[in-house]
Amino acid sequence: MGLEGLSINLATVRQQFDLAQAVEACRRLGISAVAPWRDQVAKAGLAEAARIVRGNGMRVTDLCRGGMFPAADAQGRQAAIDDNKRAIDEAAALGADCLVLVCGGLPAGSRDIAAARAMVRDGIAAILPHARSAGMPLAIEPLHPMYTADRACVNTLEQALDLCDALGEGVGVAIDTYHCWWDPKLDAQIARAGKRILAHHICDWLVPTRHLLLDRGMMGDGVVDFRPIRRAIEAAGYTGPQAVEILSEEWWKRPGEEVLRICVERYNALCRVDGGSN
Amino acid sequence: MGLEGLSINLATVRQQFDLAQAVEACRRLGISAVAPWRDQVAKAGLAEAARIVRGNGMRVTDLCRGGMFPAADAQGRQAAIDDNKRAIDEAAALGADCLVLVCGGLPAGSRDIAAARAMVRDGIAAILPHARSAGMPLAIEPLHPMYTADRACVNTLEQALDLCDALGEGVGVAIDTYHCWWDPKLDAQIARAGKRILAHHICDWLVPTRHLLLDRGMMGDGVVDFRPIRRAIEAAGYTGPQAVEILSEEWWKRPGEEVLRICVERYNALCRVDGGSN
Repeated sequence: MGLEGLSINLATVRQQFDLAQAVEACRRLGISAVAPWRDQVAKAGLAEAARIVRGNGMRVTDLCRGGMFPAADAQGRQAAIDDNKRAIDEAAALGADCLVLVCGGLPAGSRDIAAARAMVRDGIAAILPHARSAGMPLAIEPLHPMYTADRACVNTLEQALDLCDALGEGVGVAIDTYHCWWDPKLDAQIARAGKRILAHHICDWLVPTRHLLLDRGMMGDGVVDFRPIRRAIEAAGYTGPQAVEILSEEWWKRPGEEVLRICVERYNALCRVDGGSN
Repeated sequence: MGLEGLSINLATVRQQFDLAQAVEACRRLGISAVAPWRDQVAKAGLAEAARIVRGNGMRVTDLCRGGMFPAADAQGRQAAIDDNKRAIDEAAALGADCLVLVCGGLPAGSRDIAAARAMVRDGIAAILPHARSAGMPLAIEPLHPMYTADRACVNTLEQALDLCDALGEGVGVAIDTYHCWWDPKLDAQIARAGKRILAHHICDWLVPTRHLLLDRGMMGDGVVDFRPIRRAIEAAGYTGPQAVEILSEEWWKRPGEEVLRICVERYNALCRVDGGSN
C-alpha cells in the first residue's frame, strides 16, 4: 500500500529539520505530502520553499497558519487582516490545498468572548475576497476549548460550520483529532460539514496530559480512536491525506527520521481505513 | 449586603482546614453556605459533619461528589452504583440541596468514548430511583473537555441537558464557570436548562494555565466574565448561592482565612448581580 493518504505537518519535526531536510526525509520514506508552517517557509524563502516542495513531488495539504484576528484596537485587527492576505499569497505560491486558520483568542486584557468571536467572523470576511480571487480555500480549525482564551475562540466543529454558513463560499474546516475527539456532536457535525472538510489532522490525546500546548501524543499512545473518525470524514466526502501534527517536547527530542518512521508505522497500523491492516 | 448568595466549596481550602475549621472560618466571615467533599465528610464522620454544618447554621449547597460510573467490567460499574447510593444517603443526611455528579471518563485501556457515555447514562438511571426516594436531586456537572478522558465524558451543558431529558425527573445540572465559560452555546443552554439548574460554581480560567487540574483561578485573576453568566442563570430560574470552587496549588499555600476573605471580596466585586457593586 502506498502512502499517498499520509501528510506530515512539519511542526512535528520542527526542532530536528529545516524545510528542505524535512521534505527530503519525508520523500525518502515514501511520504508524498507535507504541511509546512509559515515560519519554516519564511526561513527557506518563499520561492525556494516552493521549489523544494515541487522538486520533491510533494503535495502541500495545508499551510499553517493564518488567523489570529482579534486585537485590542482597529490597527491591530487591520494588521492581522494584512498578514492573512500575505498568508493566502504564500499558500497559493506553494500550491497548498488550503490555508489553515487558527482564529485567535481574547485580545490582551479582554474578557469579552462574544466580541472576540465577532472579530474572528469579521476578520475572515475581510480576507475572503482575496482568498477567493487567489483560489485559496480557507480552513477554519476549531481548537480544543483549553485554547479559547489564548489561541482560538472557535472551539467546536459546530461553531466552525456555523461560521462557514455565515461566510459562504471559499471557507471550510480543518478537523484535528486532538482538538475534536472529545466532542459528543463530532459525528453529526462531520456529516454536516460534507465537502467543506478541507484538511484532516491526526494527533493523540495523552493521559495524563502534562502541558497544555506541548504534550500532544503520537497516534496509539493516547485515547483517540482514529479509524471511526476517519471513516466518518471519508463518508462526508473528504478523501485527502491525514496530516500528522504533533507538538511535543518529547518527540522533538528524538531523531527526525525516527519520528517520521514511527508516524508511517502508526498511520498504517491505526489510522488508514483503505487497507489490509483495517 | 449579606452574603447569603455565596457558598464555599471546601476543596478551596482543603489543604488548610478540616471540615469543622472550614465551616467555622466561613461562619466568622458571615458566609452561610458551604459545599463539602465526601472525603472531608468521611474524615469528620457523617453524623458529626451534619452536626457541624447545622450547628453553624450552614446551608449545604451541594455535596461533591458522586459519579465516576464507567468501569472496565460489570463488577466495577456495580461498585460505582453502590457507592453513588451511599453518596445520595450522605447528601440527604447533610441536608444538601443536591449531589454533584462528576460522571467519569474512559475506563482504563478503553478508547470507546460512546461506550463510556452510555455507561454514564445507565449508571445515573440505576441510582435515580434511590435519589428520588431520598428526595435528593442529582446535579450532572459537565466538565471542561480537557477532562473527557480521565474525569468526565460529559463536557458541555447541552450534552448534560440531553442526558437530563433522557433520564427525567430528579436530575439537573451544576454549572461551573471554569468548565463552561468557553462554550459558544452557553447562554442558549442556560436558558434551556431553566429550573434544572441545581448549582452554580464559580472559578476563573488563568492565562496561561500551567496545570490541567490544579491551576484554577480566583475570580478576577483570569478571563471569565462572571456577571453575564450569573444574570443568565438567574434569568433561567436559579437564584441559589454561587459556590467558589478553586483547585489550586497556589491558593492552597496561603492561609485559609485569607483565601476565604479574598473569596468574599471577589464575589462582592465581580460576581454578585444583586447589589450596589453591580
